[in-house]
Amino acid sequence: MNASNLAATVMERIEALGQITEEPGRLTRTFGSAAMRQANELVGSWMRGAGMTVRQDAIGNLIGHYASNSPKSKVQSPKSAVNSLGSPVAAEPKMLLLGSHLDTVRDAGNFDGALGVLTAIAGVQRLHASGTRLPFAIEVVGFADEEGVRYHGAYLGSKALAGTFSADDLKRTDARGITMAEAIRSFGGNPEALAEARLDSNALLGYAEVHIEQGPLLEQKHLAVGVVRAIAGQTRIKLTFTGHAGHAGTTPMNRRRDALCAAAEFLLDAELLARGKDGLVATAGEISALPGASNVIPGEVRLTLDLRHPEDLVRQAALNELQNRAAAIASERKVHLDWRLVHQTAAVACDPRLSALLGQAVRRHQPELAMLPSGAGHDAAALAAITPVAMLFVRCKGGVSHHPDESVAVEDISVAIAVMDDFLQSLADR
Amino acid sequence: MNASNLAATVMERIEALGQITEEPGRLTRTFGSAAMRQANELVGSWMRGAGMTVRQDAIGNLIGHYASNSPKSKVQSPKSAVNSLGSPVAAEPKMLLLGSHLDTVRDAGNFDGALGVLTAIAGVQRLHASGTRLPFAIEVVGFADEEGVRYHGAYLGSKALAGTFSADDLKRTDARGITMAEAIRSFGGNPEALAEARLDSNALLGYAEVHIEQGPLLEQKHLAVGVVRAIAGQTRIKLTFTGHAGHAGTTPMNRRRDALCAAAEFLLDAELLARGKDGLVATAGEISALPGASNVIPGEVRLTLDLRHPEDLVRQAALNELQNRAAAIASERKVHLDWRLVHQTAAVACDPRLSALLGQAVRRHQPELAMLPSGAGHDAAALAAITPVAMLFVRCKGGVSHHPDESVAVEDISVAIAVMDDFLQSLADR
Repeated sequence: MNASNLAATVMERIEALGQITEEPGRLTRTFGSAAMRQANELVGSWMRGAGMTVRQDAIGNLIGHYASNSPKSKVQSPKSAVNSLGSPVAAEPKMLLLGSHLDTVRDAGNFDGALGVLTAIAGVQRLHASGTRLPFAIEVVGFADEEGVRYHGAYLGSKALAGTFSADDLKRTDARGITMAEAIRSFGGNPEALAEARLDSNALLGYAEVHIEQGPLLEQKHLAVGVVRAIAGQTRIKLTFTGHAGHAGTTPMNRRRDALCAAAEFLLDAELLARGKDGLVATAGEISALPGASNVIPGEVRLTLDLRHPEDLVRQAALNELQNRAAAIASERKVHLDWRLVHQTAAVACDPRLSALLGQAVRRHQPELAMLPSGAGHDAAALAAITPVAMLFVRCKGGVSHHPDESVAVEDISVAIAVMDDFLQSLADR
Repeated sequence: MNASNLAATVMERIEALGQITEEPGRLTRTFGSAAMRQANELVGSWMRGAGMTVRQDAIGNLIGHYASNSPKSKVQSPKSAVNSLGSPVAAEPKMLLLGSHLDTVRDAGNFDGALGVLTAIAGVQRLHASGTRLPFAIEVVGFADEEGVRYHGAYLGSKALAGTFSADDLKRTDARGITMAEAIRSFGGNPEALAEARLDSNALLGYAEVHIEQGPLLEQKHLAVGVVRAIAGQTRIKLTFTGHAGHAGTTPMNRRRDALCAAAEFLLDAELLARGKDGLVATAGEISALPGASNVIPGEVRLTLDLRHPEDLVRQAALNELQNRAAAIASERKVHLDWRLVHQTAAVACDPRLSALLGQAVRRHQPELAMLPSGAGHDAAALAAITPVAMLFVRCKGGVSHHPDESVAVEDISVAIAVMDDFLQSLADR
């Protein structure tokens, strides 16, 4: 079974998975939905077909286990590698995690997440077909929630495995008022047992994830795949400028405290700053003006700022500068500024050793090795808390993601499968 | 009965009228509502108390008629001044219109509109109390819809009197799907007879309206009242910038076509232009960004532009410049611009002769005469189509209007009543 045949299978499966949605006519598959259940069943059947034993953990992650060439691994999974006194024991042999997420954004493309799970299964399938076992077990994980669409908190699935899941999050409610705890329970999980989903870091070799790039760099370089250097840190701010609403016809320009003009000035400053610093991206994706009538000066404007860079110091410096700018604009315009940090994740450097092995494998399959930053977050960022991580990016058309136009060439999937196969072999040979 | 006593009565009545609302806890009185019916009944009773005969016209305007000192005026109202062949005949004697509107915006203040109707009634009451008749009849109108809240078209009431009401508007529906024709009918009006509401311009001396300033200029000048020079013309534009949505983390700054940044640039240009031109005001009151997620670059932004100036040429020049700027921004940023004119009214100059009489009256009651532009629209703008118009602005606290905090001092109402009384006398003496 060669990489090209496997790639065709992966592509068929990606198409099939893309049909499993909670919204007719477009792909939307959120945490705990019936579509997720159906996706887990289908992907679970493919895992079994690739020689894996399959389980679903307390939060709903789908996990396929492919045993190592040591008989011990067949009965011992790292999550049970805790002795009766609750202390971790050294697990033998080690285990490698592969995978990505099975949830999607609203109106998603087919490849974001699914590609990583299905190439991982393809890799195991290839081993299984040739009767090969490696000196370490492989677990392929289809994470239950990476996008955070339903509960607005990303990496729920991978955080559960990493043991960094916050029990407070269980009280979060979705748009219909259903708590996360209820959602987990009705999906067949167990919110009380989430701590047991945690993997023992001593038993892990690492985590390797294949993912579409979601950006234009590989396409620009005419390369099928690239190795991720670091996952950008991210800060999300909610800003509110509060000025004074007034009649659009009767309030002279010099008497206005227009919150929208203040926001506009800030927006352009943020754009200018990010343009001037390599790798820095700043985005205001949400904006609303109150009271929101064409003949009333906006008295209050709320907007979001999303700031990312692969180096935390650069992001932090930019953040400070933008906060100062926002305060200066507010002061000049006699409006009030509310600046609230709502989300922050540090940059995650990929593991140099695993990434070097991955890079060597890449060189065997394409002329050039590109080391890329990842501007998007990934499950690897959460798993980095307990194990070395590495990521392989696959070129996607136009850099488009989170959109039905998301597209990956089957030839590039074939390269990714071949690279991952080499990577597994070199890890086994070490 | 002096102006000060009358002002106290006007203030009491304004308070009483402010209680008549369709929304508990806040003042909202829209066209054709039960609250409007109740307001018309109450104001009608005050009109009768001031010696007027009262009728409600085909659209729902409340009209009080105070006869002239010529016996003929008692039987002939200008709306019947059409002979049996349908041709207008010269009506004798002439008639002066006074008034303002009785509808309100949502969550309104007490004074906008009501002040003009109630000071007009107070003026007639004063004549009636002293048994005075003038050589012209007076009709006090409480217009049924000036704010346009229910059907999004302003001046419905005054347009009916001016004969500029468009029958097409009868098909407009409100938020509940009720057509304007139905609303008029259920209010006791007659949509088929709207043409009969039209006043004969030959029979009219003019229209004079008292209104709160809705701006800060009189307060700045420490003056109770001022005379309106012109009602600003207004253009309302809907702009849409269409760029390309993209991932906030993975799309480099130099590859973005961010519609919100384009809109921000335009907003600041509009502000700068308006700041540089005396009397020009530019407002973006509504804005929305799509898809509207904090981690997605806005692909489409819609906003409104409201542009006003007392001189049409200035407004038109500013409009052209802003349209060019918007196009230039769109072109630079490789986004698409849709620029749509949704509403336009020409500036209305107040009548020099009536305004001069009003100005002379003002000088008798305060040290200085301020001639102001009106940035807001008024019923006077619609009536200018058939008769000379004049307006007296009354200082309001902080320039606030369209808000429960709207406030006018009883002393200023007293000045307005005295000025209008002088104005009526000087018109009679002419």
